[in-house]
Amino acid sequence: MVIVAEERASRPYQFDIEPGAESVCPFCEGNESMTPGEISAFRKADSPPDSPGWTVRTVPNLYPAVVLANEAPFAQIAPLKEASPGFGVHEVIVDTPRHILSVAEMTDSEVEAMFRMYAVRLQTLRSEGRFAAVMIFKNVGQAAGASLPHSHSQLIALPFIPVSLRTELDRAEDYGKCPWCDMLQAELRSRVRIVEETEHFVAFCPFVSRFPAEIAVYPKRHEPYFEEQSDAESAECARLLRRTIQRLEKSVPWIKGRLAYNVILHTGPRKEFGPYHFRFSILPSLSRAAGFEWGTGLHINPISPEKAAARLRKE
Amino acid sequence: MVIVAEERASRPYQFDIEPGAESVCPFCEGNESMTPGEISAFRKADSPPDSPGWTVRTVPNLYPAVVLANEAPFAQIAPLKEASPGFGVHEVIVDTPRHILSVAEMTDSEVEAMFRMYAVRLQTLRSEGRFAAVMIFKNVGQAAGASLPHSHSQLIALPFIPVSLRTELDRAEDYGKCPWCDMLQAELRSRVRIVEETEHFVAFCPFVSRFPAEIAVYPKRHEPYFEEQSDAESAECARLLRRTIQRLEKSVPWIKGRLAYNVILHTGPRKEFGPYHFRFSILPSLSRAAGFEWGTGLHINPISPEKAAARLRKE
Repeated sequence: MVIVAEERASRPYQFDIEPGAESVCPFCEGNESMTPGEISAFRKADSPPDSPGWTVRTVPNLYPAVVLANEAPFAQIAPLKEASPGFGVHEVIVDTPRHILSVAEMTDSEVEAMFRMYAVRLQTLRSEGRFAAVMIFKNVGQAAGASLPHSHSQLIALPFIPVSLRTELDRAEDYGKCPWCDMLQAELRSRVRIVEETEHFVAFCPFVSRFPAEIAVYPKRHEPYFEEQSDAESAECARLLRRTIQRLEKSVPWIKGRLAYNVILHTGPRKEFGPYHFRFSILPSLSRAAGFEWGTGLHINPISPEKAAARLRKE
Repeated sequence: MVIVAEERASRPYQFDIEPGAESVCPFCEGNESMTPGEISAFRKADSPPDSPGWTVRTVPNLYPAVVLANEAPFAQIAPLKEASPGFGVHEVIVDTPRHILSVAEMTDSEVEAMFRMYAVRLQTLRSEGRFAAVMIFKNVGQAAGASLPHSHSQLIALPFIPVSLRTELDRAEDYGKCPWCDMLQAELRSRVRIVEETEHFVAFCPFVSRFPAEIAVYPKRHEPYFEEQSDAESAECARLLRRTIQRLEKSVPWIKGRLAYNVILHTGPRKEFGPYHFRFSILPSLSRAAGFEWGTGLHINPISPEKAAARLRKE
């Protein structure tokens, strides 16, 4: 399934700018007028919208993959061909007013606020009832698909369940209970793939790691929805995610320059589905999909998750 | 599903070599001793194996993802975890003794010979009966995942059906007849996505194009197996593939340097399956999978297949 979004071909690409050349970052404090008007922001009580004084700021994506104006059902437009306008929401969450590049550089209060904003947007969009699934993800660095360097997250809400989530939900239903709870218990017993364990969360390299040094961060208790954690849990999870990315950046000195990576928040769809367990995936851009991966749906990973976890534990 | 292949982490990477620095290409004529001994080659009648005098040469991959020594069934090694040693065949087909980088630079007789070698290897590996599926693919250029620039193809034979092929076979069985034949007839009627049509083949941009300017090359007649084409058909297909890649390279002047791309040959599995239709996919490396794609299994494509086809037809 493909979203055709021709507006996105014209988005600016600040990584192409020559070193030393001037460029103004639309996500830095003071440049609020360079983005569409804010949807939500944590800001000083007396500061007006779209002005300085914020800590996290959510704005519409200027080059959206899907838009609200497109609401229309899927239709069969020819034999074997279904299509619909690209309906949904595509937002950018500016993680911090500071021009930093990676979650690794964030302070405790910054990562905690970023997670509170994730919860606010997930609660709001779920309450609207029009969206089957909401994805939040981060592309950090050019090799991870980012077009702007300033640390930011993206949110996409869609009216249908995407194929990867559909497959997970189907398998969980077949299994009859939460497979992620069982998998986590097995990881905590064997410990060979654990990176770090805190009171309520675990970071580990998944048994089926598609990419070198892929890491998952799971809540230990069964919780389908990111936004239903307590504030204390959310803060603990935020700090563990930040520490895990710091470990990852320290563990890969063989990469020239800064490590690029994706972060994906997998959180439950609307309520009518079976077992789900929210979690984060961290995917370092240390290899790239090529002919074999696109042709087969399989991945070749040159580092076992056990070796990757052992290395990450040392940092 | 993931193949862990730790040997592959140590493969050489000639794109990292500084411009002007000397490097010896293991695929050039005269350097046959740099590869493992040849499995098959088209060569002058009086030339010994692993010596000059060849036109296409197949050798074992020195850094294989799977190996024959690993034959063992999948086993449940823990709850929710199945694994097996990485059993299979991983070969490199050196397309030509000339140090060229792209199919676009090949002569008629070179592309025709490359296709004859594909057929020889597919026939041989199918006759062994141990492999459920054989994939042939090309990674051309650094951005497409190649580690060596000299034009080459890779072949991987596996004892199971990979997930993408499994999904295609299941859907074709549900449809009850060859969906690719029907799709092709619809494309030939509408013509909006056609790039070039020859007597027995069609190049077009698929309705569901995951990547900008993605192109498929289909035989018009129903044929599940690449290796069961006639010699004349194979030669016609080879020349159309070469011309299509030439069009693609000419149509993307906005890319710095040479276009990187993947070519994937989708050919039928062992005989016991339902409808299948062999075809090539050409995937230009004009965008990259990021957090959204890895998190959802969906793709965002900034160029519609109709626009891409119109542009490609002009070249």
